[in-house]
Amino acid sequence: MSTAPAASLMRREIGETPDVVADILRDGATETQAIVRAVHAFRPRWVSVVARGTSDNAATYARYLIETHLRLPVAMAAPSVTTVYRARLAWRDTLVLAVSQSGQSPDIVAVTEAARREQAMTVSVTNDPGSPLARAAEFILPCHAGTERAVAATKTYVAQLTALAALVSALVPASGLRRALPGLPDGLRATLAAAETWVDGPAEVFSSLDRLLVISRGHNLATALEVALKLKETAHLFAEGYSTADLLHGPVVLASPDVPVLAFQPGGRVGPAIDVALARVRAGGARTWSVTCASRRHSPSDDGTTLVLPVTLPEPLTPLALVLPGQLLAEAVARRRGLSPDHPQGLMKVTRTL
Amino acid sequence: MSTAPAASLMRREIGETPDVVADILRDGATETQAIVRAVHAFRPRWVSVVARGTSDNAATYARYLIETHLRLPVAMAAPSVTTVYRARLAWRDTLVLAVSQSGQSPDIVAVTEAARREQAMTVSVTNDPGSPLARAAEFILPCHAGTERAVAATKTYVAQLTALAALVSALVPASGLRRALPGLPDGLRATLAAAETWVDGPAEVFSSLDRLLVISRGHNLATALEVALKLKETAHLFAEGYSTADLLHGPVVLASPDVPVLAFQPGGRVGPAIDVALARVRAGGARTWSVTCASRRHSPSDDGTTLVLPVTLPEPLTPLALVLPGQLLAEAVARRRGLSPDHPQGLMKVTRTL
Repeated sequence: MSTAPAASLMRREIGETPDVVADILRDGATETQAIVRAVHAFRPRWVSVVARGTSDNAATYARYLIETHLRLPVAMAAPSVTTVYRARLAWRDTLVLAVSQSGQSPDIVAVTEAARREQAMTVSVTNDPGSPLARAAEFILPCHAGTERAVAATKTYVAQLTALAALVSALVPASGLRRALPGLPDGLRATLAAAETWVDGPAEVFSSLDRLLVISRGHNLATALEVALKLKETAHLFAEGYSTADLLHGPVVLASPDVPVLAFQPGGRVGPAIDVALARVRAGGARTWSVTCASRRHSPSDDGTTLVLPVTLPEPLTPLALVLPGQLLAEAVARRRGLSPDHPQGLMKVTRTL
Repeated sequence: MSTAPAASLMRREIGETPDVVADILRDGATETQAIVRAVHAFRPRWVSVVARGTSDNAATYARYLIETHLRLPVAMAAPSVTTVYRARLAWRDTLVLAVSQSGQSPDIVAVTEAARREQAMTVSVTNDPGSPLARAAEFILPCHAGTERAVAATKTYVAQLTALAALVSALVPASGLRRALPGLPDGLRATLAAAETWVDGPAEVFSSLDRLLVISRGHNLATALEVALKLKETAHLFAEGYSTADLLHGPVVLASPDVPVLAFQPGGRVGPAIDVALARVRAGGARTWSVTCASRRHSPSDDGTTLVLPVTLPEPLTPLALVLPGQLLAEAVARRRGLSPDHPQGLMKVTRTL
């Protein structure tokens, strides 16, 4: 980090993530159990997640986690259906998870209020239990992340994932998530340490780029989307996140010597699909960087561009670790470009949209 | 079109769209009515749309159209939940619309088969009534688009939108869609004529660009996503589509003199939100191009970069017209860049993904 000025707030808040996760796992149990009892009583048949921006990427994580563990179909709500078109959706028998770091987004609040009026079970996933969103929903799943002062959400994103994973783990005790959760804080500390020594290499290259494809699959589609958003917001890099399947349906043609690819590769069931996509983009001449997990065998084609994280997690929990190197990367690219990672030009902590 | 070689297949197929739409409206009535009767008997409480690539953008259109007209929550299915994670979702009481031009995508077929086994009502929306997808689903909503020889889907995309709009119109006769549908073919002919005289200007500028933001809202989010995909696939322009709300939650920082913005502005309820976003990106120094409808007042800030289409349609039907100038633009940019719009390098008509 030779070219770096004093650590940014964003960098410091990324570093707080392991402690935030530990706090949620310790302090969130009571609220989580209350929601679990209510879900068992309500017996939802569908789930809708409502969110925007970074929280929308946490919602993407929730969507895969819930569909694969609870087997309920999950919709990502389009707020404009309620706020612009004023359509009254038939929300009965639906569990609505409204995700917003600040709990201030008027459209997320409006959808939650509408769903509650129509007999949905509403849960806010927010960092502010006193926020309008927390008041609008029947239940609060708090994120215990403390104040986040950088505009770019980092520790609050992982806090949202953790709260959601703890909820699903409590709803499906046989899932294997429960056993792995207590090891998360130490795993994330080890992840940060490993990522710090890796990040300068790709940050140096990415800071001279205009475009980047960020790919993954399944639970880590959320990681690809969130790291792409962070690289846009803080580093002004035109990065687009894709599932490897959607990539191959067209955008793969963009991968080229000028448009490299950053992959989040957790291995497991989604591993082969990501390997196929990486081989395709390399054949197109694109340089690739990968962040992967120790549990995965190191591929012989790796040439120092791969960060192997020293953590072993069930694949559904890997998004909590894999995103950290991506966040550090966005911060490092922003600084190298002379941008303030803490105060991206033209953005505010709370976005209010029609 | 002075620099243009002989017309591409893609260009010719875009030109066939008005006739295709006329065919669907004339020949699709029987199948549509059969599905309407079955939907009334089945009484779905929830809808899932299953698709990839261009068809996924048609699915986005279906999502807004169904939520605003039928008031049922709509999920955009993640095929990997079924094909990679092997989760058996609880599909009962769900209407599943599986959208695939070719009907060949193995993952879309697999999700449809899984949903049908779990008692969903399954409808394929496909251009090939003999395809595996058509066999997998209980009902077929055919797209009557004839053979599409260019790899980039154009007339089949509008055919999917038309079939879906005709279905929703038949399900909700009071919606006002029904009265407007018969005028579509002539409206699309007028649209193409107007778009042809406009497209050279932006094509000239865009062919020297690397990055572009494409924005809209509501039903035309599908248009923004589809035109961005077309510009990527055929013209290798790194174009990303956004709802104006999601744009303001972060990616707006990318808009700059080097990253212009193409907006699809249907007016109506979503009009003000799109105007707000356009003002924001112009303040950031971005040049803007807009495609809008005649029913909308011409804004004094327009300077020749706005195409006003000579059609008056209810806002939910505007995506069928607004996409045409975007398709022509992608084709024109590709040719100017020396790329073949008909055979994008590295893509095939049918994409098979894990």
